[in-house]
Amino acid sequence: MEKHNFVDIKSFDKQQLLYLIEMAREFERFPNRELLKGRVIATLFYEPSTRTRLSFETAANRLGARIIGFTDAKVSSVSKGETLKDTILMVSNYADIIVMRHHIEGAAQYAAEVAPVPIVNAGDGAHQHPSQCLLDLYSIAQTQGTLENLDICLVGDLKYGRTVHSLLMAMRHFNPTFHFIAPKELAMPEEYKIFCSQNGIRFEEHHDFTPEIISQADILYMTRVQRERFSDLMEYEQVKNVYILRNDMLTDARENMKILHPLPRVNEIAYDVDENPHAYYIQQAKNGLFARQAIFAHCLGITLDEIQADITIL
Amino acid sequence: MEKHNFVDIKSFDKQQLLYLIEMAREFERFPNRELLKGRVIATLFYEPSTRTRLSFETAANRLGARIIGFTDAKVSSVSKGETLKDTILMVSNYADIIVMRHHIEGAAQYAAEVAPVPIVNAGDGAHQHPSQCLLDLYSIAQTQGTLENLDICLVGDLKYGRTVHSLLMAMRHFNPTFHFIAPKELAMPEEYKIFCSQNGIRFEEHHDFTPEIISQADILYMTRVQRERFSDLMEYEQVKNVYILRNDMLTDARENMKILHPLPRVNEIAYDVDENPHAYYIQQAKNGLFARQAIFAHCLGITLDEIQADITIL
Amino acid sequence: MEKHNFVDIKSFDKQQLLYLIEMAREFERFPNRELLKGRVIATLFYEPSTRTRLSFETAANRLGARIIGFTDAKVSSVSKGETLKDTILMVSNYADIIVMRHHIEGAAQYAAEVAPVPIVNAGDGAHQHPSQCLLDLYSIAQTQGTLENLDICLVGDLKYGRTVHSLLMAMRHFNPTFHFIAPKELAMPEEYKIFCSQNGIRFEEHHDFTPEIISQADILYMTRVQRERFSDLMEYEQVKNVYILRNDMLTDARENMKILHPLPRVNEIAYDVDENPHAYYIQQAKNGLFARQAIFAHCLGITLDEIQADITIL
Repeated sequence: MEKHNFVDIKSFDKQQLLYLIEMAREFERFPNRELLKGRVIATLFYEPSTRTRLSFETAANRLGARIIGFTDAKVSSVSKGETLKDTILMVSNYADIIVMRHHIEGAAQYAAEVAPVPIVNAGDGAHQHPSQCLLDLYSIAQTQGTLENLDICLVGDLKYGRTVHSLLMAMRHFNPTFHFIAPKELAMPEEYKIFCSQNGIRFEEHHDFTPEIISQADILYMTRVQRERFSDLMEYEQVKNVYILRNDMLTDARENMKILHPLPRVNEIAYDVDENPHAYYIQQAKNGLFARQAIFAHCLGITLDEIQADITIL
Repeated sequence: MEKHNFVDIKSFDKQQLLYLIEMAREFERFPNRELLKGRVIATLFYEPSTRTRLSFETAANRLGARIIGFTDAKVSSVSKGETLKDTILMVSNYADIIVMRHHIEGAAQYAAEVAPVPIVNAGDGAHQHPSQCLLDLYSIAQTQGTLENLDICLVGDLKYGRTVHSLLMAMRHFNPTFHFIAPKELAMPEEYKIFCSQNGIRFEEHHDFTPEIISQADILYMTRVQRERFSDLMEYEQVKNVYILRNDMLTDARENMKILHPLPRVNEIAYDVDENPHAYYIQQAKNGLFARQAIFAHCLGITLDEIQADITIL
Repeated sequence: MEKHNFVDIKSFDKQQLLYLIEMAREFERFPNRELLKGRVIATLFYEPSTRTRLSFETAANRLGARIIGFTDAKVSSVSKGETLKDTILMVSNYADIIVMRHHIEGAAQYAAEVAPVPIVNAGDGAHQHPSQCLLDLYSIAQTQGTLENLDICLVGDLKYGRTVHSLLMAMRHFNPTFHFIAPKELAMPEEYKIFCSQNGIRFEEHHDFTPEIISQADILYMTRVQRERFSDLMEYEQVKNVYILRNDMLTDARENMKILHPLPRVNEIAYDVDENPHAYYIQQAKNGLFARQAIFAHCLGITLDEIQADITIL
């Protein structure tokens, strides 16, 4: 069996992304199968991330795999002086796939280089969170019917938000138009604007979050504006209520427009928006289940044909 | 499929309680089945309760379900600023049933109102612990052959002990006679005595715990007298050794009498009682397995007939 | 079904050890089976030991068992005033086997005396770690083709290292020659040398760790020399680099010689040794999976014949 990692969304070309989305679609049809029966999946969370862990563990459980792992390296003995390499080699003895979350950038890539089994990056520091990106792509594809030629508003913390950076890079294949809507201190970094220019991606920048901008969007991707990100708290006080999405801002939205958010939210989407037909962030989280099932299939070299031919549906 | 929660024992009428007990009895015959194969059950423990969690997880595992969850919100990232509503909606994406333990009274009821999937209350603050109550009822029914017309001694902390309050209310259907045996500071609260009067439940109050009272009981339900419950430590010092059950107090007990305790005990039942044929508290804990399997069946709308017809017994 | 514990490696005679190894060999052929389908195994870790826990949980999962338990008693509620006896009796209600790690010497033996289900000792203080010993024996048997008449070097901390003490005692059946290689402060305790004399085990003591000694070994069993073990830090400074195994020390090793280490290592084996054909410690850790599957079979009275006849291989 070939070894396929899932570490960096940038390493996947257009066809591969569309193939993963196609597999996720098949898993949405029937999420309960015995496709991974007899497999063991390790979830190594060097920092806690309950939401991501529950999503991966559900994906594994609904395909019949078994799970081993730890939820927080601080309360485990794994890290006691041992190198990451030794831990990964040890766990490779037991598991068919290793899902890992680590606070150090590049940890997953390093693990992928030393491990004999596939590595899935469940977040490495501020660097990458590629399974989140895949579920974002899937959510866009499912709601818009296509990934091509879309208007996407990215709102909130565009400086530190790794989900918006990953989404930007993954969308390069699909001719998007981006609107970057952020406070000055949290504006989209220069390197990603250069990336856009080099890849022919149109973008506009805004510092105000208005119904007028929303009305031009197919996708409104909200993120949280965190107080601790600001060096100038005066600026935080000025913007903190500006980046909150309220129901009355959605009146002129396009009919197909959907609101995404990587969750958890604090107050950046008012609760009355939850009932609005444009709200999609809860279903988006559910899509994480199907996207992560597709990731497991990818890691084990299971093809779409094999998934479709699998008849042991629970 | 209909959504049935298990949040509050008071919401179940006589027929429903007897039906749950009948289902538990069927699960005691064969606890290992594939009835929940393909189902995912979330166990969300916002405060640790290892005993309750292990019982629920065994119940799920022995029916073929898979488990996701967390064991302590403090070491998880779930609570970071996110509302309970968002967490419950997120987990509802992944699980078929949510079992939750929370330190706030009414948390389970609130979750039941927002969740699209059934909620099982595994304890909400000092409020309710309905699965404990069901296993208590089941233990009484199994040892006495009936729930009707029994003499039940409740001993120890009757002021704060939520298990005795729940038991009192659930027994209203079955014409019991209660004996409340507690230190003055931990006496049965007025509201529950009013409840008894309104529901035609006979009760007597005692401050001494004597062999004579024990000899009138069909069920002797022991609870712990905790030092921290007393405002007057002098009273604690006076009563602390009075509410300890010893073997020599059981000489005149009725033959059918069984001793229950919700566990854990500290010293309120002497260890030599463990070998006494009246001791039932370890088996009682085991009954938690069958009672919780019945709760899962209830939540998913699985009927007793369907359980009995299920032939994939492991 | 008979109850068989796995608490103390010394209680197993030669035939029993060889039988366990034979079962482990069968599990190495097919580690994925449904032999324990419908069984629940509890892993009670009163102190964290992620490595050991992952190995046991993989062994259980790959045989189709389900797992309940806790990973750290400090973040669980199990120990709140409750006796070990009550906890063990409670968990015996739910699980078919209890795997326990405890910081107190003799805790597993005590549990075995009170529990109605088999107890597996996953380490009790500095006392015993018998599953590690079984996987060490299995690793020796697999690499040497026999356990008889071998030259075994034990290197490093021979005073506190419980793995080397257990190995010494288990090897008494197989006519070994031991070389004890340790700093003076961490030399093999007198009681184990007396044990060797009483059991006709040849041994030599060395304070230098040299290629010449290595060249006489079939097995080179490395352990960690920890700074905190020394009362005289001057001695630690003198020896700390002496007990590090480097590739250039292996030039004259016997062709069949294999390097074992119970892991985790810190720096006592240089990383370039990992690629050396004599290195075996990663595979050794993997053997823990098969050894622990054999332990589960032993506990449930499952015979080698039954394992071989089991056709539901995943």
